[in-house]
Amino acid sequence: MSSQANHKLCMVPGPVEFHEDVLSSMSTLATSHVSASFIPIFGEAIELLRKVFCTERAQPFVVSGSGTLGWDMVASNLIEPGEDVLVLNTGYFGDSFTVCLGTYDAKVTQVKADIGDRPSIEEIHQALTQKKFKAITITHVDTSTGVLSDVKAIAELVKRVSPETLVIVDGVCSVGSEEIRMDEWNIDVVLTASQKALGVPPGLCILVASERAMNVFHNRKTRINSYYASWSNWLPIMNAYESRKAMYFATPPVQLIMALHTSLKQITSRPLEQRFQQHREVSNRIKDSLEKLGLKFVPKNRELSANGMTAVYYPEGVKATDLIPKVAAHGVVIAGGLHKVIGPKYFRIGHMGISVTEPEREHIDKTIESISVNLKELGLKGDN
Amino acid sequence: MSSQANHKLCMVPGPVEFHEDVLSSMSTLATSHVSASFIPIFGEAIELLRKVFCTERAQPFVVSGSGTLGWDMVASNLIEPGEDVLVLNTGYFGDSFTVCLGTYDAKVTQVKADIGDRPSIEEIHQALTQKKFKAITITHVDTSTGVLSDVKAIAELVKRVSPETLVIVDGVCSVGSEEIRMDEWNIDVVLTASQKALGVPPGLCILVASERAMNVFHNRKTRINSYYASWSNWLPIMNAYESRKAMYFATPPVQLIMALHTSLKQITSRPLEQRFQQHREVSNRIKDSLEKLGLKFVPKNRELSANGMTAVYYPEGVKATDLIPKVAAHGVVIAGGLHKVIGPKYFRIGHMGISVTEPEREHIDKTIESISVNLKELGLKGDN
Repeated sequence: MSSQANHKLCMVPGPVEFHEDVLSSMSTLATSHVSASFIPIFGEAIELLRKVFCTERAQPFVVSGSGTLGWDMVASNLIEPGEDVLVLNTGYFGDSFTVCLGTYDAKVTQVKADIGDRPSIEEIHQALTQKKFKAITITHVDTSTGVLSDVKAIAELVKRVSPETLVIVDGVCSVGSEEIRMDEWNIDVVLTASQKALGVPPGLCILVASERAMNVFHNRKTRINSYYASWSNWLPIMNAYESRKAMYFATPPVQLIMALHTSLKQITSRPLEQRFQQHREVSNRIKDSLEKLGLKFVPKNRELSANGMTAVYYPEGVKATDLIPKVAAHGVVIAGGLHKVIGPKYFRIGHMGISVTEPEREHIDKTIESISVNLKELGLKGDN
Repeated sequence: MSSQANHKLCMVPGPVEFHEDVLSSMSTLATSHVSASFIPIFGEAIELLRKVFCTERAQPFVVSGSGTLGWDMVASNLIEPGEDVLVLNTGYFGDSFTVCLGTYDAKVTQVKADIGDRPSIEEIHQALTQKKFKAITITHVDTSTGVLSDVKAIAELVKRVSPETLVIVDGVCSVGSEEIRMDEWNIDVVLTASQKALGVPPGLCILVASERAMNVFHNRKTRINSYYASWSNWLPIMNAYESRKAMYFATPPVQLIMALHTSLKQITSRPLEQRFQQHREVSNRIKDSLEKLGLKFVPKNRELSANGMTAVYYPEGVKATDLIPKVAAHGVVIAGGLHKVIGPKYFRIGHMGISVTEPEREHIDKTIESISVNLKELGLKGDN
């Protein structure tokens, strides 16, 4: 591939580096969405998603769109106008999910953590007992801050104090890199996108809804106030392809779904626990290196830090306009800050997918080296 | 490419065959959506769309999604709840656009043609004078019937009898294969998808809105009742990339946009009139061949037939279950019927993009031959 020679490692928190076989799937020659060569691939991709999301019977949706479309799906299919939703806010994506829910006339209450922190179980408990919430939303990893939520503990709390509340997880920056067990943890919806730890180029919105969530959807009293995001339109399509038949609502993105299938086959060919462990180890390695250089992280401590990305403040006197282009010139692309308040003060590194699970590629070593070298060139005095 | 050997020509009315350079763009290695290598490509793609849509200043939107999402964009950004919309219905897609508009509380009046026909200018005139319509929607080519609408004549009529009515064209199956001139013909919105005559794999919703449409959007009195489809979210992104800056709302489908850019460069490297003429000539050649075999078309006459596809009835005694698999075994994929009433009685052939503009590929010859041979094997007695 001619672009290979000049390729810079893409170490942002999505899109991430893709496997060669995923890229081959992306350039599959023109294939009809109702052809015998595509139907079983789409069908099997739907089945494989259940494995990755650790669920037996939840309903996957794979739709052309970005992860953001998953919010519209939640807001328009599960929440009826005027119903209360509790949003746990750990950054930019909590703010935006709130706006999306409001667009569909949900009444949102937020529990907003300080930057780099997450709402405590006590705060969430208190909020949950104030009124009856139709749903609670959790950003598993907020890509703007790198803060990791304790989905398991929150879901346990909800089951104990407000069992009818649907547990919705925005897993855009967590599915495939952070442990998440839909059935065991009693999660009702996990939504994500293709370009993060699932290791596929951007362009797919992926959402898995529990049987309970699907029942809530089927029993809603008001009509669904979206067309493209409506599960009424997509559910028959997912059912058809899973039973190896074609059905039409809108043309599916054939090449992206083939790429998803390739990646899901790879991911499920090894134990998921091993994958999560690798992400934890690599994350610690990167964070240890940066800590040794004297850098401070956006998340307040290691326990509430994501394992698939790192958000870290520039040291005194080093700016985005200095570091990021220098690291890029060194062949590694990292990302600037995204948070509304602290945006220009920090940078972000993605470490998900094959960059983590295939250490022989040396993506992590190159990334650490190029950041360290360039920070030192910019005058940083670190511990090593 | 290993898949090349077993590849069957994809001659359905979308997805269509793609150029090798488009496929190379699809397998571009992981690239950040805010990187210096992607920003100018997205920016230039937006500019090139204006050329293809024949407009100086209309606003393009390129969003991860299927063409269907374009309907949500029209319904949620341009129509306010309770406003009247006139839908010209020439098949399946007129039905669905009507449902989409209703979801966002538009009041829809339809002028519904018989199968294979289109509403006459007199019928449209009469409908337009009955009430004040915020918008009129025209399916330029209904992919279910292959009926071509006379967009130019309808837009002229609207300008004469109801000049404030927005002219909305569903160009999913027409942009790139049928003549369409936004500025000259006074069109307010043309929406399409990537996988038809634009010659890119599926996964992009592409919509271009006139300055007048954008003013209607900016001056709406009620809030926009969608989040993912809201131009309020996408307009700043399109403006940013066009001015060669990155901005974030949702991660754009980098590889698909690169593929779009490649295809738009090819399309705009030759006069558009030449492209349209080639589509007309190839269409006539295919239709002449089928006519010689004694087949009847779904559109009532040649004048109201699309130039990028052909919808044709099976001859007596020949069924989809017989013909389509035999043609596929011969290496060419064609499509069954999609219309709710006549679905099993006809089949569809796509002839758009490189299959038409690059005759040296012999896609059209192979398609005609394989349909003719197989129809004869199935017992058809044609004229030749």
